[in-house]
Amino acid sequence: MKAEIITIGDEILIGQIIDTNSSWIAQQLRKFEIDIVQMTSIPDTEEAIFNTLKSASARADLILITGGLGPTKDDVTKNTAAKYFGTTLIRDEKVLQHVTSFFEARNLEMLEINKQQADVLANCEILFNDYGTAPGMLVSKEQKNYIFMPGVPFEMKHLMEKRVFPLIAQQSKDIFIHHETILVGGIGESYLAEEIKDIEDELPSTIKLAYLPTLAFIRLRLSGKSKNSADILQEVKLFKSKLLHRLKNYVIADYDTSIEAFLIKEFTHQGLTLTTAESCTGGSLAASLTANPGSSEIFVGGTIPYSNRLKQQLLAVKETTLDQFGAVSEQTAIEMAAGAKATFSTDYAIATTGIAGPGGGSADKPVGTVWIAVAGKKEIITKKFQFNNDRLVNIERTRMNALLLLWKLLIKEEE
Amino acid sequence: MKAEIITIGDEILIGQIIDTNSSWIAQQLRKFEIDIVQMTSIPDTEEAIFNTLKSASARADLILITGGLGPTKDDVTKNTAAKYFGTTLIRDEKVLQHVTSFFEARNLEMLEINKQQADVLANCEILFNDYGTAPGMLVSKEQKNYIFMPGVPFEMKHLMEKRVFPLIAQQSKDIFIHHETILVGGIGESYLAEEIKDIEDELPSTIKLAYLPTLAFIRLRLSGKSKNSADILQEVKLFKSKLLHRLKNYVIADYDTSIEAFLIKEFTHQGLTLTTAESCTGGSLAASLTANPGSSEIFVGGTIPYSNRLKQQLLAVKETTLDQFGAVSEQTAIEMAAGAKATFSTDYAIATTGIAGPGGGSADKPVGTVWIAVAGKKEIITKKFQFNNDRLVNIERTRMNALLLLWKLLIKEEE
Repeated sequence: MKAEIITIGDEILIGQIIDTNSSWIAQQLRKFEIDIVQMTSIPDTEEAIFNTLKSASARADLILITGGLGPTKDDVTKNTAAKYFGTTLIRDEKVLQHVTSFFEARNLEMLEINKQQADVLANCEILFNDYGTAPGMLVSKEQKNYIFMPGVPFEMKHLMEKRVFPLIAQQSKDIFIHHETILVGGIGESYLAEEIKDIEDELPSTIKLAYLPTLAFIRLRLSGKSKNSADILQEVKLFKSKLLHRLKNYVIADYDTSIEAFLIKEFTHQGLTLTTAESCTGGSLAASLTANPGSSEIFVGGTIPYSNRLKQQLLAVKETTLDQFGAVSEQTAIEMAAGAKATFSTDYAIATTGIAGPGGGSADKPVGTVWIAVAGKKEIITKKFQFNNDRLVNIERTRMNALLLLWKLLIKEEE
Repeated sequence: MKAEIITIGDEILIGQIIDTNSSWIAQQLRKFEIDIVQMTSIPDTEEAIFNTLKSASARADLILITGGLGPTKDDVTKNTAAKYFGTTLIRDEKVLQHVTSFFEARNLEMLEINKQQADVLANCEILFNDYGTAPGMLVSKEQKNYIFMPGVPFEMKHLMEKRVFPLIAQQSKDIFIHHETILVGGIGESYLAEEIKDIEDELPSTIKLAYLPTLAFIRLRLSGKSKNSADILQEVKLFKSKLLHRLKNYVIADYDTSIEAFLIKEFTHQGLTLTTAESCTGGSLAASLTANPGSSEIFVGGTIPYSNRLKQQLLAVKETTLDQFGAVSEQTAIEMAAGAKATFSTDYAIATTGIAGPGGGSADKPVGTVWIAVAGKKEIITKKFQFNNDRLVNIERTRMNALLLLWKLLIKEEE
C-alpha cells in the first residue's frame, strides 16, 4: 500500500515548528510495509489544502493529514475538507462532552472556539482523542482513505496507535513482513558501509537494509517481505547472523533499541547502578537516560558540577588538580568520575568536562576540547575528543561518546 | 521572492531521521521576506529528484535542496543534478585537499567514496564546507537559483549562514522588512488569541502576526513589509506597543528570545546565581539552560537527586519528610529547593519532583502528578500540576512550567 503524509499549517512553512510527525508516522507505517511516496508541507489555505488532497489521492491509497485542527481562528482545514468531500460539519455531542469535561477538569473557562473542536465532518468516522480536544477523522472516498489528525505530536501518536494502526493491521494480512535490527557503535557510516558491502550486495530483492545513524551509533534494520512467512523469517535471520558475525566488534545489541535503553536494561539485568557527573554536557546525559521508563532502577541520580566550586563540593575534585591541570583535563575528569562513584556508592560513574563553546577556548584548549572519564568496578577509562562544531553539536557528541565509553567499559569488565 | 525546500533521501521517507533542516531554513528565510511555497521530501531516486527539481522551478525562484550528498553509495543526487543541468561532475582539487586534510586530522583512512565527496557539478559555484566533507553547490538556470547542501544540520546551517545568506541579502535590497517579537508566558494559545482578537483584526495587510507556541510559552511575531522603511517601522512598533499594553500581565520579553536565554540574561544583569534540583525532569531543565552560551555566568551547577537517598545526601531533605509525605509532595519539593539554595549558596533554586510515568502512579498520586518549588531571595513558591500525557511530555511540561515559575518569582522579588 502507498501512503502520503500531508502537513497542514503556515507554522511549518514559516519555520515556527519542526515537523516531527511525518518521520514518526513513516517509521511506524514501515512496519505495515506501507511505502511513503511523498511528504508535503502546505500552507493553511483552502486552495492549498483542496489541491493537495486531490493530487495526493492520485498517488496514494492512504492519505494522512496532520495539523490544521487547532483552536485558533486561522484553521480552515475542516471547512475545506467538508467542501472536498461534499459534506458538512456537524457538532458531535459525545466530543463536545469530552471537550467540556476536559476544560472543567482544568477549571478553565470554555470559549466558542473551544466548542468548535467538536465540529466534525458529517460523513467521517470519529477517531476519539483521549489526550486533547481535537478529534481525529477518518473519511473514505473512491477507495482512498483520508485520516485527519491534530498536529500536536502526542495527540497524533495516541490516535495512530489506538485508532489507526488497528485498522491498518486488518488490511495488510496477506503479506508477511519481518524486521531485524542491530545496534552498532564506534564505527562511522562510510566505514560500516564498506565493511558490509559484500553482504549488502548479496541481499535478495525481498530484503532491504536500512542505515539509521546518529552521531555515534547506527541502527541497521533488515526488512524482509514475502507471502511465505517461514522462508522470509529464515532468510532475514540468516543475513542478520552474517552482519552480527562481520560486525562483532561493533555490535551493541542484536535487537531494536537505543543505547540508553540498552544500557538501562543491561545494568538492571546485572543489578548495577550508575551516576553521572556532567560539566560540559550540562545534564543532557542524565536527561537522555531518565527519558526512559525504568531508569530509576539503575540511575541513583547525578550531578552537574558546572562551576569549579561545585566540582570540589560535590565530587571532592582537588583544588590543586583544578589549578595545575585545569577543569578540562584528564586528571579532573578522572577525579570527577572517581568522586561521583565513591560519593554516591554506585558501580559505574560517567564524567564529562569540556569547552562546548562558542567562548572559553584557548590556544592549547580550543573550543571542542572534551575529556570523558568512566569509572567502573575495576578501573577508570578516559578519552579525549577534539570536536569542531557548534555548542549544541559538541554537547551532543560528548553525550553520545560518553554512553559509548560506558558500554565499552561495561563489556570489558564482563569478560 | 518565492522559495521551495526539497529534502532528498529515503531516510526521511522511511522515518529514519526527522527533517529539522526545512523548518530552520524557512525561519531564516522569513527574515529576508522569502516565502516558502512548499516543502517536499522525496526519495533518493533519479526520477523523483529530476521531476521534483523541474516542478519546483515552476513554483519558486530559489530552490534549496538538502540531503543526498552523503558518502554512502545510495546517493544519486549529484549525477541526477548533472543530468538536469546538462553538465558533468568534475573532481575539485581544492575540495579534495580539504577532504584529505579532514581525514588526516582524524587519523582516518580515506576511502574512494570519501574522495568522491570532491566531485562537483562542472557549472556550479562551490559553497565551501568548513565543517564537513561534502561541499555545497550553487547553480543558476533560467533565472532560477538552485542550492545543493548536505543534510547534516550543522553543516547545512554553516553553509546557509556563511555562504548563502550574504548572496540573498544582496538580492532583497528593494523591500524593507521589520520584525518585532514578544515572548509571553502563562496564557494558553486560544486565550491569547481571544485576548488580542480586536488588535489582530486591526492589522493592516502590510503587517502579519505569527504565533510561535511551545508547551508553556508563546512568541508573538509582528512582521511588517513595505518599500517605505520609516512608515512600516513606526506602524509595527505601534501595534507592538498595543500588544505589550494588552498583555502586560503575560509579557516576559519585548524582543525575540527564549525563556532560557531571557532568564540567563536577566540573572546575569542582576548578578544572580541559580541552581537546579531535578527529580522528575532528570537533568533536562539544566540541559536546556546550559545549551545557551553564557549560562555558566549564572548557573553554578545542579543536582539530579533521582533516588530518595540522594535527595537526603545532596539536599538534606529530611527522611521524616519523605516517609510522611512521600518524594512527590509539596513538602519534599520545598526542602529540595531550600536545600539546593543553601547547599550551593545561590540566589535562586528550582526543584522538580513528580511521577513522569508510565509506572509509579497510585490512586492519590496518579502518573502526571508533579510538584515544583522555586526558592528565591525572600520566599519559596510552589505549584502542583496534574499532567495527563506520556513520560516525555510530562517531563517537558514540568521543565517549562518550572522556568515559568522561576520567572514569576523573579519579577515578584524585583518589585
